[in-house]
Amino acid sequence: MLASQFNMGKSNLIFRQLFDKDTSTYTYILACSETKSAVIIDPVLECVERDLKLIKELDLNLLYGINTHVHADHITGTGKIKLYPTCKSVLGSKSGAKADMFVEHGAKLKFGNLTMECRSTPGHTNGCSTYVLHDQRVAFTGDALLIRGCGRTDFQQGAKEILLYNSVHSQIFSLPSDYQLYPAHDYKGLTVTTVNEEKTLNPRLTKTLEEFVEIMNNLNLAYPKRIDVSVPANLVCGLQD
Amino acid sequence: MLASQFNMGKSNLIFRQLFDKDTSTYTYILACSETKSAVIIDPVLECVERDLKLIKELDLNLLYGINTHVHADHITGTGKIKLYPTCKSVLGSKSGAKADMFVEHGAKLKFGNLTMECRSTPGHTNGCSTYVLHDQRVAFTGDALLIRGCGRTDFQQGAKEILLYNSVHSQIFSLPSDYQLYPAHDYKGLTVTTVNEEKTLNPRLTKTLEEFVEIMNNLNLAYPKRIDVSVPANLVCGLQD
Repeated sequence: MLASQFNMGKSNLIFRQLFDKDTSTYTYILACSETKSAVIIDPVLECVERDLKLIKELDLNLLYGINTHVHADHITGTGKIKLYPTCKSVLGSKSGAKADMFVEHGAKLKFGNLTMECRSTPGHTNGCSTYVLHDQRVAFTGDALLIRGCGRTDFQQGAKEILLYNSVHSQIFSLPSDYQLYPAHDYKGLTVTTVNEEKTLNPRLTKTLEEFVEIMNNLNLAYPKRIDVSVPANLVCGLQD
Repeated sequence: MLASQFNMGKSNLIFRQLFDKDTSTYTYILACSETKSAVIIDPVLECVERDLKLIKELDLNLLYGINTHVHADHITGTGKIKLYPTCKSVLGSKSGAKADMFVEHGAKLKFGNLTMECRSTPGHTNGCSTYVLHDQRVAFTGDALLIRGCGRTDFQQGAKEILLYNSVHSQIFSLPSDYQLYPAHDYKGLTVTTVNEEKTLNPRLTKTLEEFVEIMNNLNLAYPKRIDVSVPANLVCGLQD
């Protein structure tokens, strides 16, 4: 089944996808249209002014600055975005980093009349989380699942191919097939996918576990350019003293 | 009123926004979920393979390759995308360029069970068109209206500030305030806006006509890098002999 972004069931969600060209990172602003309570997912340090300007223009009240995980490719904007007075930084409980609030697998994050479920989807990093809005039939997958791809499994906490494979299959592919999936990155200009698309078209995760491990072990990826700057900063939520 | 992308009234629209980083151009794929009939708006030559791959993956039947106008910043993909057998290129009737089909102001373009209204919105170029899907409460504005901006008015067919101002006010700002607006470009990573947002926040088009002309006459924009290559190619719909 092909889902439409314009047909997401009952919805009082204000939604904005934002892009950082330098790192091909997607940031998301979500808000309850009734109360204006809002969250931002995976803000990028260099784009915080753009994001806060939009939040102000839309008259939103920012409650949470969420990182789906400790990023290795860019410095999170959550440290700076906390200049917004009501905003708390949020990370998965297994991230091993600093944040104002930690969310466990199965936890519900409420903003206004919206509820977002946190699902633990480790593999790319130990603390990776996927956030699901069931009423809107949409999930934010971070780097666990990308459009026709997935996050790498060879750094931060060591080789975790099996963990990632199981996370995606048990926590994301188990969602209804029409759910829209929004990733933390895309490098080809694609913006969104669906559970059904990735279950049928993902060139890695449609394979058997053994084939998947083989693929991931032979990617021969370069050492991430910004990892030595990004990870230490992101372990403290991007706060700069 | 703030509209949600997830609350677009009755909808059988499959919708994909695609981005070209080199030129910050947005391409859109729209399709009827019942019949799979599809159109593509403003494809970019260098991204045609990506676009056709997605069209094939989604099992769509491409009917039209639409250019909102004769672009000056990139070569259209419509010439190449016509390798897809059922696809016809479409341009506004006042564009002064080649295409398989020309649409007049007020014309309705049907694909499957969806209907898209063409509105003539000249100013950036003479042939600029905005395409409106009323059932989905969404419009594709090309370069007539950008997010917190608008297309330049100083090239191709001469100074056309008054024309652009009147186009936006009479054809776009006259739409219901919750309609989502998708532009042909954004240079800051924003993806969508609404009629209400631009009517209240656009720094140029909220001004009086006199102030708007003054602003546009003092932009001091550089000569577009690719105009001498792009416009001649786009005048023949990007077809390469």
